[in-house]
This record gives sequence, C-alpha cells and structure tokens, in this order.
Amino acid sequence: MAVQKPSIPKGTRDFSPIEMARRNYIFNTIRRVFRLFGYMPIETPAMENLSTLMGKYGEEGDKLLFKILNSGDFMTAVDDDMLNSRESLKIAPRIAEKGLRYDLTVPFARYVVQHRNDIKFPFKRYQIQPVWRADRPQKGRYREFYQCDADVIGSKSLNNEIELLQIIDSVFSQLGINIVIKLNNRKVLAGIAEIIGSPDSLTDITVAIDKIEKIGIDAVNEELKQKGLDDEAIRKLQPFLEIGGDTAQRMNALQEKLAASETGMKGIEELEYIFNGISELGMKCDIELDVSLARGLNYYTGAIIEVKAKDYAIGSITGGGRYDNLTGIFGLPDVSGVGISFGADRIYDVLTGLELFPAEASEAPQVLFVNLGMKESLQAMKSAALLHSHGISAEVYPDEGKLKKQLSYASDCSIPYVAIIGEDELNNNTVTIKNMLSGEQHNVKTDEITEYFKQ
Amino acid sequence: MAVQKPSIPKGTRDFSPIEMARRNYIFNTIRRVFRLFGYMPIETPAMENLSTLMGKYGEEGDKLLFKILNSGDFMTAVDDDMLNSRESLKIAPRIAEKGLRYDLTVPFARYVVQHRNDIKFPFKRYQIQPVWRADRPQKGRYREFYQCDADVIGSKSLNNEIELLQIIDSVFSQLGINIVIKLNNRKVLAGIAEIIGSPDSLTDITVAIDKIEKIGIDAVNEELKQKGLDDEAIRKLQPFLEIGGDTAQRMNALQEKLAASETGMKGIEELEYIFNGISELGMKCDIELDVSLARGLNYYTGAIIEVKAKDYAIGSITGGGRYDNLTGIFGLPDVSGVGISFGADRIYDVLTGLELFPAEASEAPQVLFVNLGMKESLQAMKSAALLHSHGISAEVYPDEGKLKKQLSYASDCSIPYVAIIGEDELNNNTVTIKNMLSGEQHNVKTDEITEYFKQ
Repeated sequence: MAVQKPSIPKGTRDFSPIEMARRNYIFNTIRRVFRLFGYMPIETPAMENLSTLMGKYGEEGDKLLFKILNSGDFMTAVDDDMLNSRESLKIAPRIAEKGLRYDLTVPFARYVVQHRNDIKFPFKRYQIQPVWRADRPQKGRYREFYQCDADVIGSKSLNNEIELLQIIDSVFSQLGINIVIKLNNRKVLAGIAEIIGSPDSLTDITVAIDKIEKIGIDAVNEELKQKGLDDEAIRKLQPFLEIGGDTAQRMNALQEKLAASETGMKGIEELEYIFNGISELGMKCDIELDVSLARGLNYYTGAIIEVKAKDYAIGSITGGGRYDNLTGIFGLPDVSGVGISFGADRIYDVLTGLELFPAEASEAPQVLFVNLGMKESLQAMKSAALLHSHGISAEVYPDEGKLKKQLSYASDCSIPYVAIIGEDELNNNTVTIKNMLSGEQHNVKTDEITEYFKQ
Repeated sequence: MAVQKPSIPKGTRDFSPIEMARRNYIFNTIRRVFRLFGYMPIETPAMENLSTLMGKYGEEGDKLLFKILNSGDFMTAVDDDMLNSRESLKIAPRIAEKGLRYDLTVPFARYVVQHRNDIKFPFKRYQIQPVWRADRPQKGRYREFYQCDADVIGSKSLNNEIELLQIIDSVFSQLGINIVIKLNNRKVLAGIAEIIGSPDSLTDITVAIDKIEKIGIDAVNEELKQKGLDDEAIRKLQPFLEIGGDTAQRMNALQEKLAASETGMKGIEELEYIFNGISELGMKCDIELDVSLARGLNYYTGAIIEVKAKDYAIGSITGGGRYDNLTGIFGLPDVSGVGISFGADRIYDVLTGLELFPAEASEAPQVLFVNLGMKESLQAMKSAALLHSHGISAEVYPDEGKLKKQLSYASDCSIPYVAIIGEDELNNNTVTIKNMLSGEQHNVKTDEITEYFKQ
C-alpha cells in the first residue's frame, strides 16, 4: 500500500498542547465570567437538519454551509431529469439532508423552540462550540472555528444589555486587553430612515452606513444612490453621518434630529437607560455611541454591540445585539432575546500580538521523575502517585535511559521541576529535586515530597 | 413562510444545562487525572480528508463515515459513465473529499506523523472530542458521541501500561464506580494460535474467543469450524478456553501450556511485569487476567485492556491496548504506542443508573437577586458585581415582577440562595438572603454580603 503523506483539509487546524493551553486560557476566562453572571451551558449537535439551517444566513450563507452526504445508496433519490441536468444546486438537497452548524444562534433558536416546555424563562444560556463555514480560507479566517455565545431569551429588560456589557468588560479586563465597546440601537437607525423619508430602505441604509469606516462617506452615498435612494433622502441623511463629539454630544444631536420619529426616540431612550446603568455600575473599559454601527445583521431590533481592541489592529473581536423575533421562524413568536458572541480566534491573535498570554497558560506537568532503572522507576511511580493524591501533576519518564536525555525532555516540554531517584536516593529513601529554571537542587525525604511542592 | 417544526438529526442530541453539568463532571474528572499524570491535550479538526480515514476501520467502517459534499459545482467531477451507472459507492469519492472524524486514534496517528518534527517523544497526549458514525441509532448508541483518549507514543516501556491502569483506577475511584479491569495480551493469543497449529488463523481465533461471554464455548467452536479451523486445532484450543481460577492460577496454567511458543512466553512475561507493578503500587479496583479478551481490534499487538462496571449491567466502559505500528500507514514505521479510551456516554449511564452524580454537578449560580424595581435592581447589580469580583456566581432577575414568580424561578433553576433588595433594604443598605433549601432568612449589610457567602 502506498504511504500517504498526511494533511488536513484547507482552512482547518490541529492544536498542539501549547496552543491548547492558550486557547483554554481564553475559553476558561470567558466561561468563568459567563458562569459568574448565572449563564448556564448547553450544547447542540454538530449536524443540524438542512431545513433548520437553509435560508437563515442569506443566499451567500446557504452556499457556505457544509452539507453531509446521505448514508447508503443516496443516488436513488435523484431522478433521471435531475441527474441529466447535472445541476449541483438542485441535486444537493436530494443527496444531503444534514449540514454542519454555521453559527450558534440559529441552533439556539431551534433548541429554545424544541425544548420550550422544559425551559424556565428568562433563559440565560452560554454555548462554546465550533462552527463550520465553507468560506475561502485566508489569514485569520478558518473553515472551522469556535464561537463563545451568551444569550438571554424571554426577557425584554434592558438590564440584560447592561449585564452583557459588564460581561464584556470583565472578560477583557481579565485578559488584559484594552477595548472600546461601540453601542448603537437599531431603532435609532430605523428613526433615521423614517426622518429622511425612506423607511423602506432601512436595510440598504444600515448596510451602507456600516461601511463608513471602511470606504468613507462619499462611497457610502454613491452606494445608496445606486440602491435607489433619491437625492433628497441622501441630502437629509448627511447631518446624521456628520454627528460628532463625545457620546453625550452625539446623544444630544441625535435626540434633536430624531424628535419627530417615535421609533427613533424609543431607541434614544433605550440607549440612555443603558448608558445610565453602566455609569452607575462603573466599567473599566471605554464605551461609546457609534451611529454608524449596524453589524450588517438584519435580525437585530434593539441594541447593537461591537468591541474593538484599542492597541491592536484587527476587526471586531466581540459583537452582539437584541433580536425580537429569532424563534418566530421555528413557530414561537414574540420571544425577545439579546446576546453577545466572543471571537476566540481573533482574541487569540490579539493576545499573541500583544504578548499577553500568561506563563501559567501551560499544560505541562509540574514534575518529571527521571527513570534510571526498573526499581528506581517503580519508586518514582510511588512518589508520583503520592503527588497525584495531593493534586500535583507529575509524570515518570517511561523508558530507562541517560539522565541528560531525560533532562532535555523536561526542558523541551517546559516542565519546571525534575525529580531524580538513583541508587543513592533509593537506599536513603530520598528524592533529589532540580529546579529547571534556577538549576538549584534539593535532597528531600521521600515522604516529605508533597510538602516540598505544596510550598 | 410555513413554520418549521424544529428537530435534530436522528442519533444526535441536545444537552441541557443539567446534562451539561453532569457530562462536565465526567469530562473534568477524566481531564484532571490525565493532567495529573502529565498527559497534554491536543485537538484535531472535525473534518479529515477522506484519504486519511478510508480503509482504516474495515469495509464496514468505511460505510459508517459521514462524508461532506464538496463545495461549489461538485457535479462537474462526475463523468457521464459514472453518472449513468448511478452507483453511489463509486460516485461518493468524486463528490466528497472530506469526512467527519470516526474516532480519535487515526487522527492522532495522522497528527503524530504530520507534526513529527515538532513533537518531543515519548509523546503523552490526551484528546476529548466528539466523533461521528453513521451507525443505526439505538439505546446507548449515538451518531455523535464523545471519546476521551489518552495515549503514549514513542515508548515501548511497560511502565506506560501500568500508568494507564493507574489512570483507569483513579478516574473510576473518583467517580465512585466499582470496576474490574480485564487484562490480556495479544502475544498470548498469538501463542495460542501457534500452539494449536493455526498461526494464520489468529484473527479468526481472537474474534471468536472475544465472543465467548456472549455466545458460549459451543457456538465459538462452531464459528471456528465454519471459518475453516480443523478439528485437531479446535481440540487443542479447548484447554485454553477452559483455563479457570484466579489470576495467579490462570497465569500458571497459561505459562505451562504456552511453554513451546516464544511469542506466547513473551506475552506472559509482559503480563507478569504489569501485574507485579500494579501490585507494588497498589490499586483500589480489581484487576484480572482474561484470556478471552481480544476487543476485536486487529491493531493491538501487546496489552489489551477492558473495563467493566461491577454493579451495573452495560458493556465495556473503557478499553485500550498497545499497538506497534499505527503510524506506519502514514509513513512513520516502528513507533510503538499504547492508549486507553473512556466511553463517556456509557459512564454517564452508569452514574445515572447508580445515582452517583454528586449534587454539586450543577451549573446553576449560587445566588439569585430578585428584581423589585429599577432602583432596587441597580443596587442588586452592584451587589452581584461585588460577589463576582470574589468569584461567587450571582444573577439578577432581569425583569421587574412579583416576588413569588421570581422565587419559583430560583427554585426551578435549583439556585440555592435568593437575595432580596426591596424598599426597606434599599433605605437601610442591607440585603435579605433566603436559603431556598432550609427557608431560613438573614438580613445582611450590603458591604458584608461577600463574607456571608464565603462562609
């Protein structure tokens, strides 16, 4: 049999122990904060029925779903006409009924509706799982990546928004990343569309406004014109695009310009409640109003949240917002929810770029016992078992061999201590312990080894 | 748009917070023990190239692989002849290049070969990830389930086997499950095949012997006859099938009957080393020699390990063994490895059946602050933030509402304490804390709330 040169599918990754330690540092930080605030974990299957996923992410999203070939004789479901057409798009639904999860939001909506009778509302759940997208892989964009979501569903209280902002503040302060949270409200955007006389163009306007930072005001205006917005509307829109100053000044300007729109004023009121709450509670990070923030996602109906790292150039590292009717498509209308999603891969890049990973983000054991012979290694295993029973991680080098080789193994694996049991130590019931960083050595009685490492 | 009735693919599962808490209790116990013994985590992608997976699990296994439809216009890769044949088996490889991970062992072998230059050997890794099999779903058998594997690769020392047995002992003793570990050695089985004059029938013999417990000696003999084993060989095999007594007696009987087989005696020697080691180190669980143990898997070359629960009728809950050439198929020959795999789903069933899950296996927060108004809830959020900063989980009920409803939410969610801030408490800077189990109430000063919960 020909030998295969091993590889993995493009856009996917293996994670080595050191990468795992760093990823777990991020996941554990996020998970700990989610739990502190009373969010509870759920998990959903990697595979969902395609009927659950299709049509939820737009036409482009449908194409990016990984579809799973039906088991068994899948071709029998394809009739002659279809077969001869050779049209992949038509044939796919016949031979693939399942797809891989594309995000955590749609499966969560499906979960809530499916288990509605067992769930106590308001339901605060978090979910940390991989998702898959058949996107063209590029730097920082993978076909398999993790999302870390927290959502509250079944509560319209704006305290949820405040709490989610506290969570964001807490996570990034613990990770040591300086951030600015950008906040907006979909109702403000709807108010703007109303005021400029184009309420039906809300989607076009928000999508265009969302791009201001990337392409500039002129290009945005050009795009809106192409989308069919008349000159009058574009003219009326300009004062909104030019709103500047600090958050208080922006709020005042908006309030003035939106006075005639009930929806717009409702958005202002919501923003005020949130800004007031976080100012009472106090936050470590910066937070500002950003009227150009729309996050392209049409399902947001209230707050829109986005987080940027202040000291590292990368896109949004966390985002979220309120959606009033996510479960409607699955038959449960009028359930309001609000959620955020941490982008673990980008956070990993920021921590790497700013060298913020703590040294403790390591999965290596505390101690390596070297193996200098059968009797010695048995004694080492006994000592290791003693350490284990006190929660101290320790491994015994499995193969008998030269001390030098085993020391270099410990060093390569970043194991901080090496414990040596040779003939002398065996006879005297002691262990020689070497600090691999300082080079210091101590001779310790076998039954006092636990105390040594507890210090 | 028609409303969809939500469901998930058959054989897959959603996990609710209480199920997650219990599953995490199992995973965390296993992970903690793996880490104590110096095993380090890796992760591999859910998707592997089908060329990596095909042919590794037998013909039946190939059929059970979930295959992922190529993105884009996948039909162009199917030529007319193939199309008209309508043969799913031939067409599948053209339209699907990737498949979902079927176990953790083959991806690990692929990982080791692909990253051989970055790995320090002996490499002790653990991996806790889901796998997918298109098996017919039934009670206790799922299409998506987790495996928890620990392997040492690049070391022939039998100390590894001893360590893996210690890990098994430690995990199940921490989980409170009484187990018996069954131990065998592939070389002993090879020795038996040699002694009865049918060395080439080793596979048939081991597969048949593996079934003794299920179908009985007579049926096993019948099966061997059908597989082409002659009467003489079957007659010579009987004394081996009838070996009884305790482990020491069995070892003696085997040693006697295998004296003429060098391979067989090597197997005996290995078993003796392992039994001697664990008797020196001491184990909490029972361990016994079981010559009928073969685990059907042909890649084992030395130790074969299987674990059964003593107080609960279910199949094997953990298994493993030594394999001398797993990475050979990927171009790296002569790398010996030994590993074990914990069956998390069956362990879950045992813990449920024996009611062994601890009460602490809960993901609910410690405290619910009720929400009796805007001012009161803001004060509650401040107190919750104080608790959070001390690592105590606390949530604030988001919506203002009746006390009774909020108390029943706490009770439904198994939250042990409820903290009440009403008008009086707000004016006096206090919190009323109710123990939901005992019904006891205490009035505590706002700035002493942390001390209250730390006790």
